[in-house]
Order: sequence, then C-alpha cells, then structure tokens
Amino acid sequence: MTAPNSTQQNAVRRANLARVVEQIAAHGSRSRAQLAADTGMNKTTVSSLVGELLDLGVVREAGRDERLRAGRPGTRLELGGERIGVLGLEVNVDHLAVHATDLAGRTHHQAFVAADNRDRAPGAVLDDLAELARTTISGLSAEGVAVADVTVALPGLVDDTRGTLLVAPNLGWSECPVATLLRERLGGGAPPVGVGNDANLAAFAELHDGHGRTRGLRDFISVGCPKGLGSGIVVGREVLGGTAGFVGEIGHITVDPGGPVCSCGNRGCLERLAGLDALLERAGIAPYGQSSETPQASLALVASLARQGDPPVLEAIAEMRGWLSLGLASAMNLFHPEAIVFGGYLAPLAGWFLDGLGADLDARVLGGRWRSCELLASELGADAASRGASARSREALLRDPARLRGLGR
Amino acid sequence: MTAPNSTQQNAVRRANLARVVEQIAAHGSRSRAQLAADTGMNKTTVSSLVGELLDLGVVREAGRDERLRAGRPGTRLELGGERIGVLGLEVNVDHLAVHATDLAGRTHHQAFVAADNRDRAPGAVLDDLAELARTTISGLSAEGVAVADVTVALPGLVDDTRGTLLVAPNLGWSECPVATLLRERLGGGAPPVGVGNDANLAAFAELHDGHGRTRGLRDFISVGCPKGLGSGIVVGREVLGGTAGFVGEIGHITVDPGGPVCSCGNRGCLERLAGLDALLERAGIAPYGQSSETPQASLALVASLARQGDPPVLEAIAEMRGWLSLGLASAMNLFHPEAIVFGGYLAPLAGWFLDGLGADLDARVLGGRWRSCELLASELGADAASRGASARSREALLRDPARLRGLGR
Repeated sequence: MTAPNSTQQNAVRRANLARVVEQIAAHGSRSRAQLAADTGMNKTTVSSLVGELLDLGVVREAGRDERLRAGRPGTRLELGGERIGVLGLEVNVDHLAVHATDLAGRTHHQAFVAADNRDRAPGAVLDDLAELARTTISGLSAEGVAVADVTVALPGLVDDTRGTLLVAPNLGWSECPVATLLRERLGGGAPPVGVGNDANLAAFAELHDGHGRTRGLRDFISVGCPKGLGSGIVVGREVLGGTAGFVGEIGHITVDPGGPVCSCGNRGCLERLAGLDALLERAGIAPYGQSSETPQASLALVASLARQGDPPVLEAIAEMRGWLSLGLASAMNLFHPEAIVFGGYLAPLAGWFLDGLGADLDARVLGGRWRSCELLASELGADAASRGASARSREALLRDPARLRGLGR
Repeated sequence: MTAPNSTQQNAVRRANLARVVEQIAAHGSRSRAQLAADTGMNKTTVSSLVGELLDLGVVREAGRDERLRAGRPGTRLELGGERIGVLGLEVNVDHLAVHATDLAGRTHHQAFVAADNRDRAPGAVLDDLAELARTTISGLSAEGVAVADVTVALPGLVDDTRGTLLVAPNLGWSECPVATLLRERLGGGAPPVGVGNDANLAAFAELHDGHGRTRGLRDFISVGCPKGLGSGIVVGREVLGGTAGFVGEIGHITVDPGGPVCSCGNRGCLERLAGLDALLERAGIAPYGQSSETPQASLALVASLARQGDPPVLEAIAEMRGWLSLGLASAMNLFHPEAIVFGGYLAPLAGWFLDGLGADLDARVLGGRWRSCELLASELGADAASRGASARSREALLRDPARLRGLGR
C-alpha cells in the first residue's frame, strides 16, 4: 500500500497542526507567510491549519505585523487558549491538591488540602478528589473556561496508558484504575483523565515553571518528594521515560549492601537511609504520627532546630548528606546533568547540606573537572506535583491540538 | 527581525533535506508525490530537494512505482549512497581498528591490529592510525567510493565539538587534539574527523547492528569494554548524551564505600571490583602483562577454565556477578531499560553469570514486577567500537546530507 489513505492523511494533518503551534510558541508571534517559510509547507495548507487552530481557540489573530518590510503586512498569530482549561490534581499520603491553568499558561486556581489518606480506601479518597475537581471545573466554567484535560499525580508507579496506579506502598494501594474511577465520579461530559507519578511530574513543573525555565536548564535531576526520594530525570528538556514513575527511582539505589531493610524489601536503599523518616529518627524527633500532624510540621521543626544550631539535628543532616552523596554520585556518573534540583523535604534543609554535598560529589564523580553540576534548592514548594500535572495536560494539548476537536466551543 | 533571511532559509532547507531522507529511509522507497503528502511540503519544494539529494548521491531513482493506483505512476526514490564512504577508527590500549562502510550500509573493509599503546606517545600511535586510515581510504577510492566522514573511538572522555580527547587514564593521554593531529597526518583533502567515546560508540553499534536492530530495542544499556566497565545508555533509540563519554560511567558507581582505591581516585568503584583485572586477580591468574600478551588472551584463558569447571575461576565470576548486580540495580532503578546487553570482556563469560544476575536484579529493582528487563550477551565482538564509529559517521551524514555539498563527486 503506497497511496496515502485517510488515516495517514489525518495523522499528517495532526502532526502539522502541532508544528504550526510549535513555531508560534517558539517565536512568540508569526504570520501565515512566515509559518510557510518556517515549515516548507505551502501557504494554502498553512492557512487551512491556522483556520482550524483559530476555530479550536488555540491561537488568535493579534493585528498586523508592521515590522514586515517587504510585501503586504501579514496578520500576526499568537498562542491563545485563554478559554481552554487544564487541571492538575494530586493524591498524596497526607494531602490532596489541585492546580488549574489555561492553555495560555495563566493560573486560575490552586488548593492544597490536608488529609490523612494512609488507611483510607481508594473510593473514599477519590470521592474527595472528585469533589475538589468538580468545584474547580465549575469555577472555571463560570469564568468561561472549559476544562479539556486532567492529570492526576500519584505517589507510586503508574500505567499511564490505562490510567491505573500499579502500586503506591505509602498509600497501601495497588492496581487501582484511578482515571476510570475519577471519571465515573465526575459524570457525563467529564474531560479525559490521565495519571502520572508525583516525582516525575514535579520534575515537569521544575522544567516548565522552576529552574528549568528561569535558568534554561536542558539536563537535570529533580530529587525529593514530601517525605521520600523520588526523582525525575530531564534530558534535552524531556522527562526521561515519561511520567510513569519507572525512571528515576533514585531512592531505591543500594548505598549500603548490608544496611537496614527498606519498605521495598531490599536492604540499604538510599531512601531508607536518607529519607525524612530516617532524618527524624536520627535527630531524636518522634515520627510525625506522634510528634506532629503532618510531615510538613515535622520538617518545620527540623529546620527550626537547625537554625538554632541544635547538635543532634545538624549531625543528622550531615549523615543524610553523606548517604545522598553516594546515591547522587551514581546518578551523576550515569548521566552527568547540568544541575540537581532539591525539592520536597530537601528544599527547606538545603542551606545546611548543599555546600558540603558539592564537595563530596566533586570527589566522587568522574569527569567533574570538565563539566560542572549546579546544586539548587527548588523554589516551587509543596504543590510541585499538582503544578506539574497541569503543565503536563497543557503540553499534551499543545503537542496534539487535534484532541480539542469536538470539545464544543 | 521577522523577515526570513538567507541563513534561516538555508537552515530550513538543510532540515528539509534531512526530512526527505528520513521519510525515504523509514518507508524503503517513496515517490515525490508521497513525500509531499508525508511532509505537507509543496511538490515544487520536494522536487528541488530530491534533485539536490540525487546530485549529492544520497538517493537514487529506482523505476516507476506500479503499485500507485490513482494518477500517473511516480518514480520511486530509494536511499543510495554506495559511492559515499564513512570510516570508523579505534585507538585502544592494546589495539587499533578500522571499520569502513558506505552510506547504503554495506561494509567494505575492517581490520583489528594488536598494538601495545600503553606507554607510547600520542604522535606515534596516531602515525600508525593515519597509516591504517590512509590505506583504507585508498582501497575505497579504488572501488569508486569517496570517504566523506571519519569518527575515531577513544577509551576516555572526549570533547566532540573540538575533536579532543580530554583524558584516557588507561592510555595515559590527556588534552590530546586527536582530530587535528589525525587530519594533519592525512594531508590535504582529508575528510572531516570526529571523535567519540568507545563505550558510547559500542552502544551505537549495538543499536544499529546488534540486538538493537534484530530485537528492535528502544531503551537499553550496553555495558562492558575490552577490560573495563564503560557503558552506553540508549533511550528512544538515541545514545543518551551523545558519544562524549560523560554519560554511562557505570564503572565508577560506588558499590562499596569502604572498598579499595580505584584508578579514578575514589573508593569501591564497580570497575575496581568487577573489571577484568579484578576478575583475573581473584581467579589467581597473573595480570596479562605477565601471563599473556593481551587482555583477549587472558580472557580466553578464564573462559577455558570456566568451561572446565575450575573452582577459583567460577568463584571469581560469582563474586564479579554480585558486584555487577549492585551497580546494575542502581542503573535499572534510574532508567528501567528493556534490556542490558553485555559486551567487551563480559560477553564471552555471560553463560556463567547471566541467570544468577537476573535473579539478583529481580530482587533489587523496584517495579521489576511490571516491566521485565532482558539480559543479553552482545554478538558484536571486539570491533564493536570501530563499527559504532562508522555507524555514527553514517548517521551524521544522513541527518544532515547538506554536509556532502562540495565534496566534488
């Protein structure tokens, strides 16, 4: 079969819609003639593609471009999308969160709700999550913004093709069809729902909203969750392995073969030795089940004691730093990032370990003499995963705007 | 500046030449009309691009396509390139090698020359390499094939933008401008020369000529050099980090924090504990400087003793396997490849450790229950790096055929 058939033609058109959006996004604004020159497509094709993108609400016309010197001025096209919303949701051990933006990138709503989800059934937790989503969708609708895609951040491994959480040891959930259960709760006309791993999505947020944007980082590791050591690996401005959570399990690198047993069943994992629980234990602070309501409160206590120069806390942070240097040196020897960004429970403590860790890593990493690696504290805060989830939905739509067909705007 | 200028136009044309080559390569053969439909470019543009590719000798016309049902039959275009040659060279501790193919992928010449390069000056070694290259280039020229690109595989970290070897501890070389020195020796009219890391280039060979091709692997780690533990990491059919050697330094992952000092200055590196030297020492076989001429000969002795069931050799292989499982589990937790391919000194020994290693890794890797990882012995043999070097040169030309302009065919 060599004649193009309609399936092929549709695939080519979908890809070309995305190319036009990509060019407009890359340049800020673009005329139809420039788009034809950028892409090598003929002007009739470009006009037809632009027509569909205008109908879908992804781009808008923004007046004549007076800077064009030759020929008649063209109408400038810009990214639009103010009326198309995306929702990032998060289920975690001790909170639910939501982050809503539009396709143009403006944040419309965010919320972080404390909740002890450790021993609750998935159905009950997803009832609460659906309520949070429904309220947000109604709020956006009242502003004239229709939600076109939802991504749910989950603290475990996911199968993103089926929308299923495979396993989340901290929640005690396994094989849970989160996307289906949430859509059932949202009812008819609910937008498509996808799922992703929280640490991978936090890396996505760091890439698009954090140091990845402000410093233009191309290759980095984002490490640290609210209490554990998940990570996301960014190569060439893509999160490696997507957001399923299989890639970046730095917390389960063995750093002490004869060490204590980890929740994963293995011995001497980095997370077991350098996670928040290990830090609290070494600092002589009771686990947050007993001493405080949430990991955040326990962490605030650690940071406060560190500021006062409390010796057990400073020693505990130094020991954590030693284990981190072993695990991170492995990651750096394997893929030599430009930067490591410390988020989650590591961000507020960074001031007490970053300099020492840098010296440790210089000694352990081959090739460090030729390529430096910056160590940075994330500035995103506790909503990194839900923010990454909405950024992921937004990118998915911009990379395939044809998904907006039939959304009924 | 919004009007397209000639630099932009040239960049667009270069990219579009590559797109046409990519489509023809992906489909096997393609008419001009199909190429226009594939890419959304207009037929005049496609005809002009095809005309240049025919002139450059990268594609050829292959008769009418009778399978096209509608309209007049189009002339089929196929990848050509039988008259354009590429050369992969290798400098290693105990050998030089060459591998020559044409752009169509046919191997024209290969040679593997034993040479003790450990204490020789770079200039003398590159004299020999230039002689090997010159002879090969003349041979190809006599067949009507002009060499358009050369890649040199080196056992160390390289700066591929400058063509410089940064450091190769086993050779004792540092800051050596290999590309410049080789081109000087080849004289006027010499083709462009690039450099790459041997382990990364062996991964490239595995991708294009080995299990990557036969099994269609997209994501894998290729591990093992002639005596050490370099590796290449392949993600989405690209060698991560290119071929500079910074990515994939699995041999310098710390697996025993209190272990013996490695040549890199750190303690307890995987290569120090599981490299060929460590294996020989544990098996009670004298280092190959004393017991045999080359690492290959020492390795053949180990394999022969293993076949006879020699207890010290089997114990040494089992201990090597234990250290490998620690280092590879870290790599798998970080990357979750579909497969690990064992090359270099590990390939001939694979029969004695692969099954046991698989069981070790199942126990150590999170998420292994949902995604399996095949463990495979490479079938490429000792010329993997030089073969990868020629494949690298070939790919570079197919991705930017405009580089062939002015080659004077």
